[in-house]
Amino acid sequence: MQEALLVLNKYWTEHGCLVVQPMNTEVGAGTLNPATFLRVQGPEPWRVAYVEPSVRPDDSRYGENPNRLQTHTQYQVILKPEPGNAQELFLGSLRAIGIDTAAHDIRFVEDNWASPALGAWGLGWEVWLDGLEITQFTYFQQAGGIALDPVSVEITYGMERILMALQGVNHFKDLQYAPGVTYGEAFGQAEYEMSRYYLDEADLETQRTLFEAYASEARRMLDANLPVPAYSYVLKCSHTFNVLDARGAISTTERASSFARMRGLAHEVAELWVARREELGFPLGTSSGTSPATSGAQAAETRSHADAGASTEAEAGAASEPVLPAGPAPATLVLEIGVEEMPPAEVTRTSQAVQAALTEKLATTRLGHGEISVSASPRRVVAVVSEVQPREADYEQTVRGPRVSAAYDAEGNPTKAAVGFARSQGADPADLGRVTVGANEHVALTRQVVGRSAEEVLSSLLPEVVTGLRGEKNMRWNAPRLSFTRPIRWIMALLGDQVIPFTVSSLTSGRTTQVHRDAVAPAVEVPTADAYLSFLKEHGILADAAERRRLVVDGATRLAAEVGGRIDVDRHGALIDEITNLVEFPTPILGGFDAKYLGLPADILVTVMRKHQRYLPVVDAEGRMLPYFVAVANGHCDHDVVRRGNEAVLRARYEDAAFFWKADLETPLTEMREKIRLLTFEERLGSMADRADRISAVARRLAEVLGVSGADREVLERAAQLTKFDLGSQMVTELSSLAGVMAREYAARAGESEAVAQALFENELPRSAGDNLPATLPGALLALADRLDLLAGLFAIGAEPTGSSDPFGLRRSALGVVNILLRRSDLAGLTLSEGLAIAAQEQAVPVEPKTLDDTAQFVLRRFEQQLIEMGHSTTDVRAVLVRADSPLLAARTLEELESLQGDERFATVLAAFQRARRIVPAGVAADYDPDRLAEPAEQALHAALTKCRQVLDGETSLVRFSTETGDLVDAVNTFFDDVLVMAEEPGVRANRLGLLAAVRDLAEGIIDWEALV
Amino acid sequence: MQEALLVLNKYWTEHGCLVVQPMNTEVGAGTLNPATFLRVQGPEPWRVAYVEPSVRPDDSRYGENPNRLQTHTQYQVILKPEPGNAQELFLGSLRAIGIDTAAHDIRFVEDNWASPALGAWGLGWEVWLDGLEITQFTYFQQAGGIALDPVSVEITYGMERILMALQGVNHFKDLQYAPGVTYGEAFGQAEYEMSRYYLDEADLETQRTLFEAYASEARRMLDANLPVPAYSYVLKCSHTFNVLDARGAISTTERASSFARMRGLAHEVAELWVARREELGFPLGTSSGTSPATSGAQAAETRSHADAGASTEAEAGAASEPVLPAGPAPATLVLEIGVEEMPPAEVTRTSQAVQAALTEKLATTRLGHGEISVSASPRRVVAVVSEVQPREADYEQTVRGPRVSAAYDAEGNPTKAAVGFARSQGADPADLGRVTVGANEHVALTRQVVGRSAEEVLSSLLPEVVTGLRGEKNMRWNAPRLSFTRPIRWIMALLGDQVIPFTVSSLTSGRTTQVHRDAVAPAVEVPTADAYLSFLKEHGILADAAERRRLVVDGATRLAAEVGGRIDVDRHGALIDEITNLVEFPTPILGGFDAKYLGLPADILVTVMRKHQRYLPVVDAEGRMLPYFVAVANGHCDHDVVRRGNEAVLRARYEDAAFFWKADLETPLTEMREKIRLLTFEERLGSMADRADRISAVARRLAEVLGVSGADREVLERAAQLTKFDLGSQMVTELSSLAGVMAREYAARAGESEAVAQALFENELPRSAGDNLPATLPGALLALADRLDLLAGLFAIGAEPTGSSDPFGLRRSALGVVNILLRRSDLAGLTLSEGLAIAAQEQAVPVEPKTLDDTAQFVLRRFEQQLIEMGHSTTDVRAVLVRADSPLLAARTLEELESLQGDERFATVLAAFQRARRIVPAGVAADYDPDRLAEPAEQALHAALTKCRQVLDGETSLVRFSTETGDLVDAVNTFFDDVLVMAEEPGVRANRLGLLAAVRDLAEGIIDWEALV
Repeated sequence: MQEALLVLNKYWTEHGCLVVQPMNTEVGAGTLNPATFLRVQGPEPWRVAYVEPSVRPDDSRYGENPNRLQTHTQYQVILKPEPGNAQELFLGSLRAIGIDTAAHDIRFVEDNWASPALGAWGLGWEVWLDGLEITQFTYFQQAGGIALDPVSVEITYGMERILMALQGVNHFKDLQYAPGVTYGEAFGQAEYEMSRYYLDEADLETQRTLFEAYASEARRMLDANLPVPAYSYVLKCSHTFNVLDARGAISTTERASSFARMRGLAHEVAELWVARREELGFPLGTSSGTSPATSGAQAAETRSHADAGASTEAEAGAASEPVLPAGPAPATLVLEIGVEEMPPAEVTRTSQAVQAALTEKLATTRLGHGEISVSASPRRVVAVVSEVQPREADYEQTVRGPRVSAAYDAEGNPTKAAVGFARSQGADPADLGRVTVGANEHVALTRQVVGRSAEEVLSSLLPEVVTGLRGEKNMRWNAPRLSFTRPIRWIMALLGDQVIPFTVSSLTSGRTTQVHRDAVAPAVEVPTADAYLSFLKEHGILADAAERRRLVVDGATRLAAEVGGRIDVDRHGALIDEITNLVEFPTPILGGFDAKYLGLPADILVTVMRKHQRYLPVVDAEGRMLPYFVAVANGHCDHDVVRRGNEAVLRARYEDAAFFWKADLETPLTEMREKIRLLTFEERLGSMADRADRISAVARRLAEVLGVSGADREVLERAAQLTKFDLGSQMVTELSSLAGVMAREYAARAGESEAVAQALFENELPRSAGDNLPATLPGALLALADRLDLLAGLFAIGAEPTGSSDPFGLRRSALGVVNILLRRSDLAGLTLSEGLAIAAQEQAVPVEPKTLDDTAQFVLRRFEQQLIEMGHSTTDVRAVLVRADSPLLAARTLEELESLQGDERFATVLAAFQRARRIVPAGVAADYDPDRLAEPAEQALHAALTKCRQVLDGETSLVRFSTETGDLVDAVNTFFDDVLVMAEEPGVRANRLGLLAAVRDLAEGIIDWEALV
Repeated sequence: MQEALLVLNKYWTEHGCLVVQPMNTEVGAGTLNPATFLRVQGPEPWRVAYVEPSVRPDDSRYGENPNRLQTHTQYQVILKPEPGNAQELFLGSLRAIGIDTAAHDIRFVEDNWASPALGAWGLGWEVWLDGLEITQFTYFQQAGGIALDPVSVEITYGMERILMALQGVNHFKDLQYAPGVTYGEAFGQAEYEMSRYYLDEADLETQRTLFEAYASEARRMLDANLPVPAYSYVLKCSHTFNVLDARGAISTTERASSFARMRGLAHEVAELWVARREELGFPLGTSSGTSPATSGAQAAETRSHADAGASTEAEAGAASEPVLPAGPAPATLVLEIGVEEMPPAEVTRTSQAVQAALTEKLATTRLGHGEISVSASPRRVVAVVSEVQPREADYEQTVRGPRVSAAYDAEGNPTKAAVGFARSQGADPADLGRVTVGANEHVALTRQVVGRSAEEVLSSLLPEVVTGLRGEKNMRWNAPRLSFTRPIRWIMALLGDQVIPFTVSSLTSGRTTQVHRDAVAPAVEVPTADAYLSFLKEHGILADAAERRRLVVDGATRLAAEVGGRIDVDRHGALIDEITNLVEFPTPILGGFDAKYLGLPADILVTVMRKHQRYLPVVDAEGRMLPYFVAVANGHCDHDVVRRGNEAVLRARYEDAAFFWKADLETPLTEMREKIRLLTFEERLGSMADRADRISAVARRLAEVLGVSGADREVLERAAQLTKFDLGSQMVTELSSLAGVMAREYAARAGESEAVAQALFENELPRSAGDNLPATLPGALLALADRLDLLAGLFAIGAEPTGSSDPFGLRRSALGVVNILLRRSDLAGLTLSEGLAIAAQEQAVPVEPKTLDDTAQFVLRRFEQQLIEMGHSTTDVRAVLVRADSPLLAARTLEELESLQGDERFATVLAAFQRARRIVPAGVAADYDPDRLAEPAEQALHAALTKCRQVLDGETSLVRFSTETGDLVDAVNTFFDDVLVMAEEPGVRANRLGLLAAVRDLAEGIIDWEALV
């Protein structure tokens, strides 16, 4: 291991890095070392490499866990500005320490890094070596809350992991640290003892005292204009916080406030540092990277190629530039945009975006072309346009001159204006024609414009495609005016065998593409655009995602069959999509794991595979797990090497999970339930245990309202006592997506009834859009209570979602409430507003009526949107929303409304009620004296109304309403025919309006009639 | 620089070292890293190397000082057990980083390391590269208060220094840290800011809080049996202490108590660590070093070669072992004991000790030999014995048997006892002779014993010489049963051309010697003992110290003459002695320095040269400094390289001094005076400012007593206000021996009168035995007040010297008081007891009369000893001590007493007064009634006494007393002749005794007559 560190030092010094020492105060990561945090600030170039023993109190495991250490050894590299080939440099360093990058499967897997305590974030990857995360690779975008310019690249190696893989050992203690000395021998005791300190022994009061002392020194040093000592105290704060956290002594609120405090200090440190460096005249010089003044995104948008198309009539035309000689015949265009590994979701999105952009932009030219097809892999977007014509079609250009009335004098001779216009266009006045613009006739010159060559068109069009690229989350790198999900590294643009020359930022288009990095020649010249996808395939690159997906599915299925199993392609569709976009050439490899792990619940096994490793589980015909998986490597590799590596990773993960599983099984449920008292849910809303208590209470009251009794009631009572207990388990702490799943597992194994276990599981349903809904009544009540509590509580404290920020998932919760109510008729007795009111009463904070109303509205809006997204007409949806306090009723009404579409009777009903509604001014009550109704039509209406009221008597069906109001509708229409509503005599008028208001009110609440106008 | 660190890592891993990371909390030295402090404990072998950025808040200089950094880079190596060739390994590492060890002057200069806070110490050297201290090299003897077994060797490189020398730059900021990046660019800002923090900004209250918090966590972790976290908190304590210290916030007492606390914790940590390692079964194995049970020193003493000499009559003799064939003729013996560089003082001492041991031990044998001469250099002790006879002389051995009375029966036949005795000796009863022992006659056997061969004698005698070696301070290393000032590495023992074979510990005698380490062949075979010193000289080694000294003096004098100067050999005698014993072959080299530094006071220049560099200053004929110096290198080297190196070192030192000088000159005297309020003198006696205040007060009161007025009084007043202010200067903080000197310089430059400046200087006189005394009255008064305060105060708190411990230098102070009073007649009006009483009154603590008396007695004893050491007779000294409360008077009286030696009159006087004293019982008062004196002799005596009293009237001179008492003496003698003192009548008797008591009292206090009996 020490040898590897020496080699890395040597390698990186040879690549211009300073080597510095680890920080002399405990830090959680090499990023915190001032050699990173401070140096990435400002314009000074900086290249540094160092070892950083990184202290993570939370990862303490007494040295028992094979993969977790309270102090692990990071090797950190900062390249500022990012040099454009950092990935290649990194791969070179792996080779230097003896990793055969061609034999192994090395991948760059999306991982976006953020440190809330430091106000820092960046985009990049975790680097996988045969499925093992060995390095974090990040383009630093912000630190200390300051946007970085230039951008630095940060490479953080996890040395223990790399060396465990290299040495083929399963426990960090067995690593050969130096000849004859193992890691365990050298550091085992410290690992055990420091774990004891961090997990069991650290004195909380002392640590809090230290935190305050450190924070106050940091504050004072900022005031004294000394960022360096200030920063050292920020680091001490951070470590102290971590110690407290590892001891379980940090509540959510404390976390938030401590982060805010540290982030604030870090921000000031960063600002002050830059200011001080500036005072010193930036001693290390300034980088020649992007200009500080220009943000890539803005600049890209202001690049003006907008007029290059010249496809509309020019108001004032200038002669076209001399054109390049055009190719003789139609040719294929290929535009390849080379990117460092895009996140899987961006691969698809970008492919579509480029397709759209090309289509749209080409449409604004006169350049003829065939099919546009765009495909993408992690490292490239390839657009192929067939049959691109050598030139744009020629066309007539008409240039408008003065009005005809001003262009000719009385004699019909051209005026000075006309002569001047003609001259300005290099034409003779005699050539002037006429054109009508609006009401006016103008003189005009029309001439034949020769279309531009394809090269010319594309040279100005393709750059726009590149600069227009945007991801979900974008970064900057050392390329002015560009901003994308990951750095764009090359552009290959060929029309036939000709390069379309253009420049975007620091990139110039050419005919070179990049194939696999471990290819003998990673840079390849492309002779021609024809059959480019085949050309790529010959180099082991499948640009077409569908083709890759097929390879994944077919390969995995074939491998699974070899061991008598199969892949559940439907269940893992999203995972397969992700895998498809993680590789350029899928190479499925079958791996196995020790059957003993099959003793763990399948959910755990699958979750670990999916979440951490993106492996496909292999199941038997009945869907039971087999001890196999399929990993999908990228391109050529040594299958045995890669299999062994992936198996080792999975073994370590399962060992971890088994450790948690065992520990949790030994813990009584009540003890876990008690542990969640330490988890603060939200400062004002208390701990997670407080929340669980509220859920219990709300669920019980809902049961009261609904009159739930018997077995369901008993199950609910017991489940309510335990609800959320699994948040206190180690497994869920580690794999939070298993919340509920583990509750069911642990409850069942602790002797709870199956029904109770199921209810606890269902409490968490639905976990996402499309997830299952609770199947049992107790589960549904808990799930409802859970979400109602969340909504009422967070709205009460003003934490409703804003914009894209919805940290507590209230939108999802609102839909959960709606969908649970929608799907269960045994909950029909419960309205949304009742449920919310009950939840509100259980809150420790007051909930104002207005707030409650806002909350309900929030839920209704989600419901409305869901209905619309399901394809219902907006009008219909709006019309039934009036009943949405009972979503089930609203949904049924919507169904009825849709069934009444085109129904004549209903149209009559609708018209009648509309007529009544329209004439009655708002505010007029349904108040009239039947005795003062003199006219027969009046009396008939009164009678029909009275009868209809009796018949309907609380009827909620729109169809029945429509049917039963037939007589009333006739009476309404007769009334309008026979009676003058707006009678002269005020009393009569008021009485008639009151009668109509009563008609109106009969229909009130059935649907929103107004919406159907 | 980073390259050098990489090379060192590589070098030491190739030599079996683990490379670990710096400690992740601030440490003051690599020694504190657990990889050293914990790992040197216990029996486990350990080899480690690491970089340690060492934080020394006290060395903060804002990055301005060219050589001092608050964080400097140590490179630390631990070899456990010490391998026996660590010096050679170290030199190899220097060559690895590009130092031509043959061209440079590399020396191992005594430096004994101790860390009071860690309870650690070791012996070793600072390694000089051309006069520059580049490395600390220590044999660790103790850590955490635990004796280490095996002993580790610690090598601590000062990287900045080494690289400044290698790169030839004068300021650390100019070091090339990495290609294109200077040290200043990389770390300059941190250096400035952290200096600001440590020197100016750190919040004291916070730091104290931290110290307590850390100490309490350390305590708790010890109680939890976790040495590793406990130790990390001890380190944090230590750093916090250093921060407080740098801020000047640590009093002497606080220092002591904090050290005690940290030492206590460190001790427990060390114990606990070893216990835990033992529990773990010493995972790294146990070293095959010295046995834990045996301390080298004790074992050496118990080795029993004591009977090997067999030089006394054997009481019961056994036949001698068969002897080796002896050489044919007398031969020269050479014993060379090869040692790693001894401290200079030990070179001389060891040479003498070996001479004495050899002489004594040879005297106990019968082996004839010529002259014994022993010489020594730092690396060897060479004993040469000429004309060693090939064999011991033969001799008769007599073995005593039973008494004659028991040996023969009445018939004169041998008894059973006699027969048995004879048989036991292998003799016939007829051969029995007789021997008289005390009063008894025994039978005896006498036989000729053949002397042993020289080889045999020497093989058993020489090991005793080696094991008997002891230094002032001794160490252990990886050689069981040996203990010496530094490790003994080889033994060469030749008699003529034959090896005297023997073994001591792990060493075996042979014929190989070691010459210079950079010689082509450092190990040389010695063919013969003859002319060995010449043989050594041919290899560039002068074993003879006198010869080396001559070379130093002659060479330096010659070099000085080249630039028109000379060396003050008398003034620098001790320094020359030291230099002589720092090298094996003196190579004086003339260096120069920038004449601009001559602007600094000469005292500074000389002090820096002597203290730090052991250079000889070059002065002109008038004794004024010239800008040159002579450094003395060891053996061959490249003179230009070494000169440049030494010049650079001196330049840096002078730059330092000039920095302090400038900074101090810009500081008002009152500000410096105020600064000493932060220096605690002693807990109960307050700060240094308190002490200075007391000195002022005492000096003023002394002036009152003596009636000092006028200019002297004015000077005293002003000087008293400023006294000790220079302890607050940077220069004195750095070079404490310049206290007083700097006071004079700074005062004069701040516009104080020359007299005031001089008085401030003289305040500190005398600084050592033989130093100048104050020349002015104000100076003398301050100096007296200073010492009286010290004595009164420290005796008052019970801090008088004990045994060899005199940390406050009270013995020196007592002599100072005496000598000042001795040399100044204008102080004659002041007695010691008066002075002490005044000082006592100024103390903040009560001073009991008994204490004051003890203090005065302490001073008198020192005075007495000084007088005796000056050669005065003990009797005379005792006789005059009665007057020593006024030392001047006592000294004059002593002089008179000595002048009266052999004086007949004085003898008469003496006899007469003795006669009177002897007859008067103690306690009889000088009380008589003249009217009752009836006898003429009585009356005559009364008359003579009365007259004499009048004549003497306070006379203090012994000579005048002797002269003036002539008549009285006659009267006394007549009185005794004529009068019976002890008359029958009690009244008469009492009256006569009263008269004689009056005579006695007249002489009282002149001298102690009793002493002259």
